[in-house]
Amino acid sequence: NTTLYQLKRGGTNVISLRLRTALRCLYDYSTLSRSTATLSPVDFHRPFLTCSSEQVLASTRKLHAGAEGSKVSPSAAPERLPFCRVTEEDLAFFRKILPGRTIVDPDLVEPSNVDWLKSVRGSSEVLLRPQTTEEVSQILSYCNSRNLAVNPQGGNTGLVGGSVPVYDELILSTSLMNKILNFDSISGVLTCQAGCVLENLSFYLEERDYIMPLDLGAKGSCQIGGNVATNAGGLRLLRYGSLHGTVLGLELVLADGQVLDCLSTLRKDNTGYDLKQLFIGSEGTLGVITAVSILCPRKPKSVNVVFLGCETFEQLLKTFQLCKGMLGEILSAFEFLDSECMRLLNTHLKLPNPISDCPFYIVIETSGSDPTHDAQKLHNFLEEAMTSSLVSDGTVATEEAKIKALWSLRERVTEALTHDGFTHKYDISLPVERIYQLVTDMRKHLGNQAKSVVGYGHVGDGNLHLNVTSPSKDPALLAAIEPFVYEWTASCRGSISAEHGLGLKKRNYIYYSKQSQAVALMGNIKAMLDPKGILNPYKTLPDNLKQ
Amino acid sequence: NTTLYQLKRGGTNVISLRLRTALRCLYDYSTLSRSTATLSPVDFHRPFLTCSSEQVLASTRKLHAGAEGSKVSPSAAPERLPFCRVTEEDLAFFRKILPGRTIVDPDLVEPSNVDWLKSVRGSSEVLLRPQTTEEVSQILSYCNSRNLAVNPQGGNTGLVGGSVPVYDELILSTSLMNKILNFDSISGVLTCQAGCVLENLSFYLEERDYIMPLDLGAKGSCQIGGNVATNAGGLRLLRYGSLHGTVLGLELVLADGQVLDCLSTLRKDNTGYDLKQLFIGSEGTLGVITAVSILCPRKPKSVNVVFLGCETFEQLLKTFQLCKGMLGEILSAFEFLDSECMRLLNTHLKLPNPISDCPFYIVIETSGSDPTHDAQKLHNFLEEAMTSSLVSDGTVATEEAKIKALWSLRERVTEALTHDGFTHKYDISLPVERIYQLVTDMRKHLGNQAKSVVGYGHVGDGNLHLNVTSPSKDPALLAAIEPFVYEWTASCRGSISAEHGLGLKKRNYIYYSKQSQAVALMGNIKAMLDPKGILNPYKTLPDNLKQ
Repeated sequence: NTTLYQLKRGGTNVISLRLRTALRCLYDYSTLSRSTATLSPVDFHRPFLTCSSEQVLASTRKLHAGAEGSKVSPSAAPERLPFCRVTEEDLAFFRKILPGRTIVDPDLVEPSNVDWLKSVRGSSEVLLRPQTTEEVSQILSYCNSRNLAVNPQGGNTGLVGGSVPVYDELILSTSLMNKILNFDSISGVLTCQAGCVLENLSFYLEERDYIMPLDLGAKGSCQIGGNVATNAGGLRLLRYGSLHGTVLGLELVLADGQVLDCLSTLRKDNTGYDLKQLFIGSEGTLGVITAVSILCPRKPKSVNVVFLGCETFEQLLKTFQLCKGMLGEILSAFEFLDSECMRLLNTHLKLPNPISDCPFYIVIETSGSDPTHDAQKLHNFLEEAMTSSLVSDGTVATEEAKIKALWSLRERVTEALTHDGFTHKYDISLPVERIYQLVTDMRKHLGNQAKSVVGYGHVGDGNLHLNVTSPSKDPALLAAIEPFVYEWTASCRGSISAEHGLGLKKRNYIYYSKQSQAVALMGNIKAMLDPKGILNPYKTLPDNLKQ
Repeated sequence: NTTLYQLKRGGTNVISLRLRTALRCLYDYSTLSRSTATLSPVDFHRPFLTCSSEQVLASTRKLHAGAEGSKVSPSAAPERLPFCRVTEEDLAFFRKILPGRTIVDPDLVEPSNVDWLKSVRGSSEVLLRPQTTEEVSQILSYCNSRNLAVNPQGGNTGLVGGSVPVYDELILSTSLMNKILNFDSISGVLTCQAGCVLENLSFYLEERDYIMPLDLGAKGSCQIGGNVATNAGGLRLLRYGSLHGTVLGLELVLADGQVLDCLSTLRKDNTGYDLKQLFIGSEGTLGVITAVSILCPRKPKSVNVVFLGCETFEQLLKTFQLCKGMLGEILSAFEFLDSECMRLLNTHLKLPNPISDCPFYIVIETSGSDPTHDAQKLHNFLEEAMTSSLVSDGTVATEEAKIKALWSLRERVTEALTHDGFTHKYDISLPVERIYQLVTDMRKHLGNQAKSVVGYGHVGDGNLHLNVTSPSKDPALLAAIEPFVYEWTASCRGSISAEHGLGLKKRNYIYYSKQSQAVALMGNIKAMLDPKGILNPYKTLPDNLKQ
């Protein structure tokens, strides 16, 4: 049995094994899996690329003019609100409190006016770069009294137009607020300024045998303050939960310049309302986050990845259930793609299918503290999944490079789609058992109007990436998709924005996922915390909000 | 080596083993640990008993009159606010919407007027028992228009006087709202009415191979709505995190009767502000929780417990760190008690110390999906802890009854204290490395004024139970403790109420843990959501709140 030998010798790369004949190899592959001990899966995920390609392709400000042609798009910017315009006196004030850090050179301000996708562009003339909470407080106090609008900006990696100005809002960048304030190696609680880049925090922690509880493709430039402000999901949510659980404290500056100190580092504190929660996911519209404390998990000593094929989505869901039971505490990712995705990977990127053709493919990742135990758990699970005919074929990766190769089958779907034509992309949360029905229903609904209708995403989080391609931009196709997809999502109480937020682009779709009373209450909270509405105007809340 | 044989044969109960000589036994004890697979630790925890014994002993309403003698206690109830009093017309309305469930018989209302500790007593004359959200909505709409105060009540197991009326507030009990609405066995999301008793939910889930992410000594009577309203911590927080992470959705009725539907079952939803978070831990002062959806973990297949001794608290902390690294994903509890606790257990309860005398004792619990792997991880950890001289002695329990016996050493400290005299109890959160310093400093500070000063609690959560006993009630001792303990806690940015909340009794101590601007903002939120202040008045927020 050559596969057995290959496994034992560790000489091959992505080891393609027919599970029925090679399962016994897994008994001994623990020594191999150790080679993956230091692997972090983050390099292979690019949530950035899950944006709408029409957004990427759109020329600047096109979105504001309405993407659906003659009709004004719900995502188009509303009229400029009557904020004051920046004067020379204002600049003199900012230069006094931020000497050398009040930027007005248009070339230097430009990168902060345009979003990462180059899909929306503001026309701000001033970029402020505070270093301290006190400076942020002085800026907001002044802007509030002067009725100047402010666009708080972290790494500017957002996908919904939330991180750049719409008009001439002052840009308040947290980039220079990049100090780690404390790390408690006993409790694992990290406290840092909001402008710390996520990847820098990860490097810092990994040296201390810890990891951040969140990880994103944007890690190289996104900032922890922005992550918290947008309630970033990312790759580790299945395992470590959302930021509402892991963020222990926040320091904030409110619209009027008041510093709100909720920078607790305690796991338990039931003294009054948990105010910080309100700001997690508020996209800079309620306050500016200046510091964060966050609970960090220990770094896993072992990581394994498996690529499996299933005949039906029902079997895929049963596999997920089995997996949760048998892999238990070491399961760290459960992702899927359909055969249409595989076809695009083959056609456009020449990536071969490492197993036999199946309607559905699964990527499972384990992270644990003991390589031998993890390998055994994985073996037991695979044996059971095969015996009960839940999966029909599979491949195991044991080395870092090979794990990367398997992950790329999941992660490069987005890239493959961009080669398939004009792509309509949706980031939807659904009850996990309904995930794929939306894809099937969309196919039936569109018939031959679409070139491809594909589904992939995070089964573990109930997060579907639904994609529809056409040879070129096609308003009729968009009209066939857009009420349908949002109404379908709303009918299952799903979310029309699982992790990207609403920002500028999606603010008016909020009613598909939130009750009008709830949205009205959001408006009341906004009015209470920012009565003049200077913080990140035109974002998150819909234009037709009744306050 | 007899211990080895005993272990292998599984014939003994609490197996006392000198670790240095018997560690090798653990290599093979995996078969034994399987016998503990179905053990749930909850029966051995009684958070109820961690209340102040002065509260237990106080006669009814004494607290309102001030516990410190002539001075009015900050925890004493303020004057009755000018709410309307219930009229016959009001009763006629309630009887119409709640036929047979509008209770006015004083004997039947009585149990809802008195808290579990019998430390505070209200004088309500009406108990309302709605079954549906619509009924709760009708009640609150009416009460708000009539300016009638309402005391929402779940299982009435709270420890800070938050769950009973202070004066004649109407009692709105959720006890009849006890239906499980849905359980999704793929995602593990449970949706149920607020009045479901925690233990009933646990039984329901365990039959389906899941568990609740929280567990409390009060499980037999506390309700999930009350758990969420008080942000209950409990025994599983170290492993599964707080309710801010595990609660996915809430249905609420606001003070004016408006139903706020945030009953999402999605893990990811970034469409606007996460309103439900505001109500988690708000103690019924912002709205009445009528339904909850919560993410449930799979039931662990294996549970193990170890009892260890340490020479110093520094070594105990190093053991915690080692434990987090080596037990990793299977660690489910890390609790401690000091030698003073052990002395009280020996003296008052005749519980023998199962290991040699040490200044500090640790209880570690593991929960995992593979008994063999868990046993091996535990062995590796214990070997390392011994080799590096972090722990000096230890005992392992492998069967359910014996695990219970070890847990009781931690859990019966409270009971032992009640036999030691009048007890002052404090439930404090601190940065984990400062936990024991408060006990040491308190001992120095009090000198021979106190009979015993003991410390125990949840190291894993940074939660200290500090207890001071005296032969009888001693106002001078209280005066020596109380400013000191709160100021000490505040100086480390600790919490003066880790998990019990503020309720009536602790509301005025909030400033020791929360900045005045934050408390003022809480007041604004209360005023926005409940402008007439009818919901659970006199609770959570301090009397001197500036709104």
